[in-house]
Amino acid sequence: MNSSVKSRPDLGPLLAASSIAVIGASNDPYRIGGIPLVHLSKHELNTYNDYRGRVYPVNPKYKEIFGLPTYPDIESVPEAVELAIIAVSAEQVMQQLERCHARGVKAAMVFAAGYAETNEEKGFARQRELVAFAERTGMLIAGPNCMGNANMVTGAHSTFAASGLFVPRPGVLPHVGRIGLVTQSGNMCAIVFMFAQRIGVGFNFVINTGNEAVVEFSQYLDYVLEDHETDAAVGYIEQLRDGPAFLNVAQRFRERGKLLAVIKAGLTEKGAEAARSHTAALAGNYAAFAAACKQSGVLIADDLPHLALIAYLTRFGRQGGKRVAVVTMSGAAGALLSDKFVGHGAELPTLPAEAQAKLRALIPDYGMVSNPVDVTGNIQNAVTGGYSTYYKTVKALVDCDEIDTIVLWMPGYYLDGVTKDLIQLATETGKLIVAIDPSDMVNPAALEAGGIPVFNDMMRAVKAISSYSHWCDDQKALKAAGKSSALKASTASGTAVSMPKEAVTILSGIAATLPCSLDEAAGKNLLASFGVPVVGEKVVGNADDAASAARVIGYPVAIKVLSEDIQHKTEAGGVMLGLASDEAVRAAFAAVTDNARRYKPSAKIAGAVVQAMTHDAKTGANELLVGVTRDPVFGLMMTVGLGGVWTELFKDVSHRLLPVGEDAALEMLKSLKGFALLDGYRGAPKADLDAACKAIAGISRAASTIGDAVLELEVNPLVVLPQGRGAKVVDVLLTVDPGKVDL
Amino acid sequence: MNSSVKSRPDLGPLLAASSIAVIGASNDPYRIGGIPLVHLSKHELNTYNDYRGRVYPVNPKYKEIFGLPTYPDIESVPEAVELAIIAVSAEQVMQQLERCHARGVKAAMVFAAGYAETNEEKGFARQRELVAFAERTGMLIAGPNCMGNANMVTGAHSTFAASGLFVPRPGVLPHVGRIGLVTQSGNMCAIVFMFAQRIGVGFNFVINTGNEAVVEFSQYLDYVLEDHETDAAVGYIEQLRDGPAFLNVAQRFRERGKLLAVIKAGLTEKGAEAARSHTAALAGNYAAFAAACKQSGVLIADDLPHLALIAYLTRFGRQGGKRVAVVTMSGAAGALLSDKFVGHGAELPTLPAEAQAKLRALIPDYGMVSNPVDVTGNIQNAVTGGYSTYYKTVKALVDCDEIDTIVLWMPGYYLDGVTKDLIQLATETGKLIVAIDPSDMVNPAALEAGGIPVFNDMMRAVKAISSYSHWCDDQKALKAAGKSSALKASTASGTAVSMPKEAVTILSGIAATLPCSLDEAAGKNLLASFGVPVVGEKVVGNADDAASAARVIGYPVAIKVLSEDIQHKTEAGGVMLGLASDEAVRAAFAAVTDNARRYKPSAKIAGAVVQAMTHDAKTGANELLVGVTRDPVFGLMMTVGLGGVWTELFKDVSHRLLPVGEDAALEMLKSLKGFALLDGYRGAPKADLDAACKAIAGISRAASTIGDAVLELEVNPLVVLPQGRGAKVVDVLLTVDPGKVDL
Repeated sequence: MNSSVKSRPDLGPLLAASSIAVIGASNDPYRIGGIPLVHLSKHELNTYNDYRGRVYPVNPKYKEIFGLPTYPDIESVPEAVELAIIAVSAEQVMQQLERCHARGVKAAMVFAAGYAETNEEKGFARQRELVAFAERTGMLIAGPNCMGNANMVTGAHSTFAASGLFVPRPGVLPHVGRIGLVTQSGNMCAIVFMFAQRIGVGFNFVINTGNEAVVEFSQYLDYVLEDHETDAAVGYIEQLRDGPAFLNVAQRFRERGKLLAVIKAGLTEKGAEAARSHTAALAGNYAAFAAACKQSGVLIADDLPHLALIAYLTRFGRQGGKRVAVVTMSGAAGALLSDKFVGHGAELPTLPAEAQAKLRALIPDYGMVSNPVDVTGNIQNAVTGGYSTYYKTVKALVDCDEIDTIVLWMPGYYLDGVTKDLIQLATETGKLIVAIDPSDMVNPAALEAGGIPVFNDMMRAVKAISSYSHWCDDQKALKAAGKSSALKASTASGTAVSMPKEAVTILSGIAATLPCSLDEAAGKNLLASFGVPVVGEKVVGNADDAASAARVIGYPVAIKVLSEDIQHKTEAGGVMLGLASDEAVRAAFAAVTDNARRYKPSAKIAGAVVQAMTHDAKTGANELLVGVTRDPVFGLMMTVGLGGVWTELFKDVSHRLLPVGEDAALEMLKSLKGFALLDGYRGAPKADLDAACKAIAGISRAASTIGDAVLELEVNPLVVLPQGRGAKVVDVLLTVDPGKVDL
Repeated sequence: MNSSVKSRPDLGPLLAASSIAVIGASNDPYRIGGIPLVHLSKHELNTYNDYRGRVYPVNPKYKEIFGLPTYPDIESVPEAVELAIIAVSAEQVMQQLERCHARGVKAAMVFAAGYAETNEEKGFARQRELVAFAERTGMLIAGPNCMGNANMVTGAHSTFAASGLFVPRPGVLPHVGRIGLVTQSGNMCAIVFMFAQRIGVGFNFVINTGNEAVVEFSQYLDYVLEDHETDAAVGYIEQLRDGPAFLNVAQRFRERGKLLAVIKAGLTEKGAEAARSHTAALAGNYAAFAAACKQSGVLIADDLPHLALIAYLTRFGRQGGKRVAVVTMSGAAGALLSDKFVGHGAELPTLPAEAQAKLRALIPDYGMVSNPVDVTGNIQNAVTGGYSTYYKTVKALVDCDEIDTIVLWMPGYYLDGVTKDLIQLATETGKLIVAIDPSDMVNPAALEAGGIPVFNDMMRAVKAISSYSHWCDDQKALKAAGKSSALKASTASGTAVSMPKEAVTILSGIAATLPCSLDEAAGKNLLASFGVPVVGEKVVGNADDAASAARVIGYPVAIKVLSEDIQHKTEAGGVMLGLASDEAVRAAFAAVTDNARRYKPSAKIAGAVVQAMTHDAKTGANELLVGVTRDPVFGLMMTVGLGGVWTELFKDVSHRLLPVGEDAALEMLKSLKGFALLDGYRGAPKADLDAACKAIAGISRAASTIGDAVLELEVNPLVVLPQGRGAKVVDVLLTVDPGKVDL
């Protein structure tokens, strides 16, 4: 998997250049050759921070643009600049790049369209040429078909997006923060940026990746991660070109305690279809993307405001968690907020008796103290009383160990009155305290400065708080378990091993045509060679042989009459299950053959099959489906479900990228809605989860070892017996590409 | 059900009084005795329309308040006013009400708290006294514990909510519209009102219902429905006190083509718990509420902005529908919008070839024409070209019969350029055309005036458009089917009938203790008397009797060995299924008894049971659970599911209030995720849905006829055989209250 993780070049010349040339410079502040110069100069339209680096407009037609001396060509520029902004048409790009390279330029931003995004051969050819150039010269190339980037800290901007687009009020400097924004769509970038600006969230890097012909999404994320002034990153993704690289950088975000949240199109089939049509590239499977995010701690936002509001919460750097307490002065708001928080995966723990007692002393009898807490309209009296009651109410929750996050719902005219108290409380605790002002009347500045985020919409607040809290809990768990060791432990037992001898024999024997499915027996033997338990069976001709076979296979066994002439064995009385002794097997051999003869006197009876009895109707065994498929972006992905209609109709499955170790397998099983069926449902025995997880890890081990040659692997069913009784593969379908088998 | 629908008094005196007295009038414009007078006078704080009726402040301490002559008592007021606003404390309310009644006052608004909402006996007693007074005098009483109402058209306000609360900018008259707002929470009312005002949505009635001691939620809805100047109503519900009344008024909203949308707390257990604690009343089951809304065409909003934005869409009175076309100039936006629309139940039909061809002539090759439509950044060229291209693009969708709703996503700076064209298009079609301006830059006024709603947020737009479109489709279906006849047809076969003789016998025989469960046989016989097919069985002692019994029961049958000494009949070979002939039955009798003897020679074999063979493993029969429970608010509700884990673990059930006729039963089954299992899943035969629906309607008929006496009825399973082969009740549990059985 790591083989395709690209090297990590320093993107400094692209994102924080100290010297920039603009090839194709224009003196029109609204054209793509002019806008970057507006940002890099003292032009009156420049609403960004001043750029302190050196700027060189390049265009033989001008002597000066926006007060900057202008050069006829890159060769005349007095230094080898770090970054060249190539603001010329696609036809002229290569020629300019060659000259830049000759002049010693390290990086280039290519705005021009007309490449792979056109989905035409001419465009593909241009893009191939660009890639070949980068490979030959080592030049860092951003784009093409790219809106450019903004470095909000140093002012090293390379974007042709007009200042006005990004800053709603000209003349007001934009908010600058410690969050990177990396997107694959200029339009989505602008929307997130503007929404964020309106709520006071600033970014340090605003990055558009364009076609990513050379520098790819995860490499930008990597740069942002490594930046010491960055705490978090948010992104819009259309298609990832390098799944393993994304997984790698995401895991390092997680390990470093920096939040990463993304949004991606393609959740539904229609959305995926639209994304595919739009990007003309392998969009990959949304399930694989979601699995990658889940297992590496990346938050997936539901919409663009959600993404911006997660970023908003990170600004405060406080410790949240999903155990939420809600305080309102309206029972209605408390009930609605409870519904929303629970619906978004948070908890509203009933407060312990001690906390309830503290609150009861402060809140009228008809108010609620269990959580949600309803201080009632009595809040109006507290205004007169200086709000000390409210301070004590929230303080009781701050002091409660069962609560991570405290959410205060209160119209702004009341909120104003408690601002001072809330800020005091925020200084006394690291817990996340959030205010929701449904009337949008409070000026949030004071509260925000005091460490208290303020929302004006209930639903948006709940979504953002729930996501952020989920991230906080993940970080806490990681710290408790010891970071990277915890990440590795969950996968260890599912990683590749050296190929067992039996597997070599089986794989050597298969036809060299592509693709190639192994027959059921070979598939089972292959899995067995990796330590995965599989079911066994034997054909017998008489009662004594049946008993001998049963002893070899191990009790209990099933007996099935063997006759070409009888199709419906069960109807014929030709199947007997759960036989537990030699005598029972002998009697059963007689019974199934007698019954079959009675049912159809003309039938030719060849004998019977003795098969290991994986389970019967009463032992409460379960059947799992364990599949491994190849995602074009992320590689091998495992799918685990309860099989049959559970998987197909109810889509009750869990996905995870390989390798899947025993711990990870257990997590996958636990995330199924149907997990209760494995966990002693309605008095049934608990399933042998240990054995199931060992088998799943073994399947992962087999697939990881066969590696690139695996096209598809489906175990269906993996029978899981009650606790202590094991799990067994009953059927398997394995398709490999023999040309890729590496023995 | 209709028995508890309250009479419908004219609420005109409460909501549109032409003369109003304020008892406990104050000259302080911020006190509850003063605020109503601000609204009803020329006071400078009055930001509402002028009230043209007659106003009489009542307070012996004043001669005049806000320029209005003030009277010492209600007796001195020169006329019998329609409405008295009672702005005195709970202790004084009754005395004032008696005097008002004596003076001929028709209606009273009671602000005072201290009633049932305190959840204390003193409060309950006060509320009982109020109810008794209303019953004795016939006076219309709103509240108590009520924030009051506003009539935004006539100015007949009776609220103590300050003007400033409802109108963000003093001095600007609020928007007035053709939509009623009815809520059970003053806080939620204020939030919806303010959000709506900000987006230009006005209401005509703003109603708070308070404790609803006398006049209840649905009666207010009824008044709003009957108002000729009202097109729609939106509401916040905490608890409905009269479910059937709500269902009744909701159905009449539907029949009259007026939209009704509500939001209710209590979706999750935590939310329901919070709602219960808050209201100290039977909250009822959210599932019953949702069922009532679904079957009467009421939209349920997800949050308060959603509610306000549904109201916003109704303003335009256009014909939407779930077949949505999306037009963007960003593939990313198209993909995200597709995901969101599909996720919210809308469709994005692939456009027919003809429409695609029209679009292809207008849109660059790398743009998308299938739906979503991506006109690409080329929109920028269209600016220069006068946007005619864009006009033609949208026109192609307006002309497409497969599309109901057209959603245009475009930053405001482009949207401004096409405003004229879009308005032209809107005059040419009744279809819903909606614009989404993610940059929030366009001034929506012109587009709105031209019939085009404008949203600034993608997710909110999708939710509101999807809900409104669902309503439009329901209305279209209703019109196509012929309104009330369609509503009745779906329930007819499930309604109460006269009690069958056999049912009378069975019910007469049960013990008069409460509650009382009928034994399985009695339960089945009772259902059978209502025409519901049930399974039959007979005990036999020899092979000939078995064959005779099988002929009576009807083939195929099952035979089960009868022996106290054998617990696991299947393991003993003691069960044979699917026997289709006399010979097979005789052979099977011999086989099961022989097998049992061979399995356990010491066992005493009593004979066998011949049972109607409802199904075997190969016929692909299905088992349904059909339950009837009593909801405290809505009465008898049916739950249908696939039984077992489907119902319990996956909650894959459908609810509907009784009566459930055959058509309604089919709708319920179709709404199950597991419906595919009944519909020929993976080559299995289709289930006999006709028979299943007849059986379900029969169960509804039985429950409806037994009526108030039904405590619980659970059929589990109702076995549904393949098409043409029927459905049968195998087991039933019926619990009745014998004291309520009406024979």
